[in-house]
Amino acid sequence: MHPFKDKNIFVRNAWYVGCSTEEIGSKPLERVILNEPVVFYRSEAGVAMAMYGLCPHRAYPLALQGRVVGNALRCNYHGFTFDGRTGACILIPSQPAAPSNYRQKTYKVVERGPWIWIWPGDPALADEREIPSSEMLGFGEGWTYLRPFAFTGIKARYMLLVENLMDLTHLGYLHGDMSSDFEIYVTSPLEIIETEDTFKVVRPMRQGWSETHDVMFKPENRFEGLSDFASITTYYGPGYITTTSHITHAIDSLPTVDKTVYGDVYFHHAVTPATEHSCHYFGTSSRTHRLDDRAFDEAFYPFDAAVRQQDIVAAEAIEARMIQFGEPRTELMAKADIAAARIRRRIQRAIDAETAEARVHQPVAAAF
Amino acid sequence: MHPFKDKNIFVRNAWYVGCSTEEIGSKPLERVILNEPVVFYRSEAGVAMAMYGLCPHRAYPLALQGRVVGNALRCNYHGFTFDGRTGACILIPSQPAAPSNYRQKTYKVVERGPWIWIWPGDPALADEREIPSSEMLGFGEGWTYLRPFAFTGIKARYMLLVENLMDLTHLGYLHGDMSSDFEIYVTSPLEIIETEDTFKVVRPMRQGWSETHDVMFKPENRFEGLSDFASITTYYGPGYITTTSHITHAIDSLPTVDKTVYGDVYFHHAVTPATEHSCHYFGTSSRTHRLDDRAFDEAFYPFDAAVRQQDIVAAEAIEARMIQFGEPRTELMAKADIAAARIRRRIQRAIDAETAEARVHQPVAAAF
Amino acid sequence: MHPFKDKNIFVRNAWYVGCSTEEIGSKPLERVILNEPVVFYRSEAGVAMAMYGLCPHRAYPLALQGRVVGNALRCNYHGFTFDGRTGACILIPSQPAAPSNYRQKTYKVVERGPWIWIWPGDPALADEREIPSSEMLGFGEGWTYLRPFAFTGIKARYMLLVENLMDLTHLGYLHGDMSSDFEIYVTSPLEIIETEDTFKVVRPMRQGWSETHDVMFKPENRFEGLSDFASITTYYGPGYITTTSHITHAIDSLPTVDKTVYGDVYFHHAVTPATEHSCHYFGTSSRTHRLDDRAFDEAFYPFDAAVRQQDIVAAEAIEARMIQFGEPRTELMAKADIAAARIRRRIQRAIDAETAEARVHQPVAAAF
Repeated sequence: MHPFKDKNIFVRNAWYVGCSTEEIGSKPLERVILNEPVVFYRSEAGVAMAMYGLCPHRAYPLALQGRVVGNALRCNYHGFTFDGRTGACILIPSQPAAPSNYRQKTYKVVERGPWIWIWPGDPALADEREIPSSEMLGFGEGWTYLRPFAFTGIKARYMLLVENLMDLTHLGYLHGDMSSDFEIYVTSPLEIIETEDTFKVVRPMRQGWSETHDVMFKPENRFEGLSDFASITTYYGPGYITTTSHITHAIDSLPTVDKTVYGDVYFHHAVTPATEHSCHYFGTSSRTHRLDDRAFDEAFYPFDAAVRQQDIVAAEAIEARMIQFGEPRTELMAKADIAAARIRRRIQRAIDAETAEARVHQPVAAAF
Repeated sequence: MHPFKDKNIFVRNAWYVGCSTEEIGSKPLERVILNEPVVFYRSEAGVAMAMYGLCPHRAYPLALQGRVVGNALRCNYHGFTFDGRTGACILIPSQPAAPSNYRQKTYKVVERGPWIWIWPGDPALADEREIPSSEMLGFGEGWTYLRPFAFTGIKARYMLLVENLMDLTHLGYLHGDMSSDFEIYVTSPLEIIETEDTFKVVRPMRQGWSETHDVMFKPENRFEGLSDFASITTYYGPGYITTTSHITHAIDSLPTVDKTVYGDVYFHHAVTPATEHSCHYFGTSSRTHRLDDRAFDEAFYPFDAAVRQQDIVAAEAIEARMIQFGEPRTELMAKADIAAARIRRRIQRAIDAETAEARVHQPVAAAF
Repeated sequence: MHPFKDKNIFVRNAWYVGCSTEEIGSKPLERVILNEPVVFYRSEAGVAMAMYGLCPHRAYPLALQGRVVGNALRCNYHGFTFDGRTGACILIPSQPAAPSNYRQKTYKVVERGPWIWIWPGDPALADEREIPSSEMLGFGEGWTYLRPFAFTGIKARYMLLVENLMDLTHLGYLHGDMSSDFEIYVTSPLEIIETEDTFKVVRPMRQGWSETHDVMFKPENRFEGLSDFASITTYYGPGYITTTSHITHAIDSLPTVDKTVYGDVYFHHAVTPATEHSCHYFGTSSRTHRLDDRAFDEAFYPFDAAVRQQDIVAAEAIEARMIQFGEPRTELMAKADIAAARIRRRIQRAIDAETAEARVHQPVAAAF
């Protein structure tokens, strides 16, 4: 399935954002994650939990009026109750004893930054240290961020958003009406910094005081001359990408830049597959300046939302046509597609590795 | 297909409620019954009729502006007209003679109680006497009933409603917000009375004057002490089930109960398959007391409707997830599922018998 | 697929109406034509153009905010630009040179009468002279026509509208509430005039001054006695059919009829397949009398629209049931179906010829 060679397009053994921290509480939340119905909730102690979202008794969705009892979640159809850590069925109200041998599937979840992260793959492989740290992502000390976006149930395969993010030349067209400063993304050179653990696309640029500076850094901080800055796209895995606004190195040839005035801005893009044809898109932007400037937050929020919505509209338009007219058989690739092409190969390798792994673990007697 | 072993989940040779008596008149009504488009109407003499709902000429739906002419129904596309009893094409207006050899499929229908019953199976096997009598169902002399409900096109396979009805422990959870008296259903013991013709689930209970008594029997009829009563679920076939409110045997140890005061209440549940993933749900409640109490009818109607709608919401939620995530491969069964499990086996046997029958009748030359 | 014997129901090598002339301009328009997403637009010089509607780079729909540049169309995702005649990619903005070897599929289009005609088949076979002339269709000198209808995305296979038009006995039923004069269509005799190039159904009729005359020819032009007139259905191919109102030959036995008073009226029906289960339906009516009578236009427009909408409702009702209940296995044909049956065979032959052609051109190594 486009853009991958086989039907499976998911990397299961990875951390994904399942929801934002503020989305869950004592009321359970159902969300489709990599084709599974997952129910998220907080235990009575406030700890984020996730389990398979359908009751094993009558397949009723646990999120529909389900009630949190301690760590456990109670189904509202017949009251069957399941522990959020072990998955044990701890209560069937119509009979004295609960079954001792049943285990509902539970998921490892971690709360970090504004996100609840989930590991949809093999629990034995889940390593919390693989989640990018708050410091790395731009949520640490000295940063602030907008209240997060959660665009859920987007009708587009996740790779349409991932590849959108890996080629920012689209800023000059798809988002061209949002800012006159987006045009420079079309022709600026790019450099890819790739190691086994890192994948960055860096676009060095030089510009005088602009519309973007005016909005971001306040008119009274106007400088003369040119600044040197970069757009940096960082790929942390199929489920997390950050892009930046101006990461400024020098202003009017002065290499010491006051980040509390001319701050760094990161745009966060968490893309979580829902089904083969849909995904969730979480995001926020974090910054090092105007830390307590709620008026800036309020002004910037709708701009950030509008740009993301243009991407969503594009991705859904493409998906709808792929469904109707078939998957693309050929693609006219441009030089600017180099980052997207490499990420596609990276993810293909991860998919292949999981498929091979699955084959090894398959019992010999299984019929195909 | 869940919960049966093969793809076919329908029992065709059975009486089903096709519509309520008040739903049809001189304007034809189209309704999908066991995957067939059926058109119901009343002849000019007022007799309920049903035939295959598409004109054999151009497949136009006969119900769309179709006109009743005597016993017959006239298609509004080109005026082809079909007799409601024989199915004969009695008129093609654009030519002098009607074809002598065509027969539109017609169905046996019977009007009884508030229902128009239909036999979707082999007409040679249709026996009107197999429809439960009005007396048996609780529509006879000395009873009254609410104007019937017709919830049509419910997006759930019929068995989700049937199994819902066969396990009333759900009253304490799914309907728990409707009445504090529903909690006793969760833990009350049950007895199954099963013969070849009969399938009843009886739950004996004992309770003092309660919220239910207050609503049903009026506060001024309050008694002291405890009453002995039962909840009785009667399965008449895949298409008809009744449940009860309090069927009271004794009040404060007095075994003579005045039914005109402490009456019996039956809830009627007619579940008719539409497609593999949808059904119709007809119902009413009938009672032996407060016979002319229209104020009670008006007060009770929305309560009864709300409970049924909770069941519909549950069934549709389950169906939607079965479609999206696949049919359940395992089920965590409880002791309270015994009645549902036996009914499932009964219906499976009926399906198997019809399939075997169909194989026997299949001409030898037919290729599979 | 009904009503044809194989899955393919399209004749590709034929001229179809893609849109009305007024539907397109500098903003591109996306429309599905024979299962392909086609984008229509006018070049800066105003010439109608059509190309495959998805950008070959990322499958983004060219019609979404796409911009016309000279003859070319620019994709709004990353700015790739394609020439409307050759299909050449003439610009990739993020790089200096455009690829020399890519060709986007373009379509031959012709603007004639109120229509933009398109040839979805083999461009080498497209011959503009096969489009019926304006004179032939009734758009030439001495005619006027209503602003055209464009009913797009009708959820019915195109043949349901074609066969509807080939059997006008439906006027007395489906449209019976629109005019009391429609009843005569049910029983009037018909003659088919068929040559290799021509297919006409002629219904001679005789009638005194009627409701139709009153509306069409004004009450003050009332004549005494009877007129001889004909209803003529002309089939120009799977995509274009005209029907008529009264084509009057004699009035009260006088064979010289003043066409500027008792004019000819043609109803135009352009039916263009979209998918196997949907089509577009374009139309207008043209006439030889009341040429500058805009009040008549305004009065006649809603009548004409309402009749067409009844046909659309019928076709969609049939299609929906064919999808749900399966394609008809038998059809009860009437004598009045003779024209529809012959047209069905004609189109089947055209489909077969294209299929045979396609097989011949298929490379030998292709596996089936």
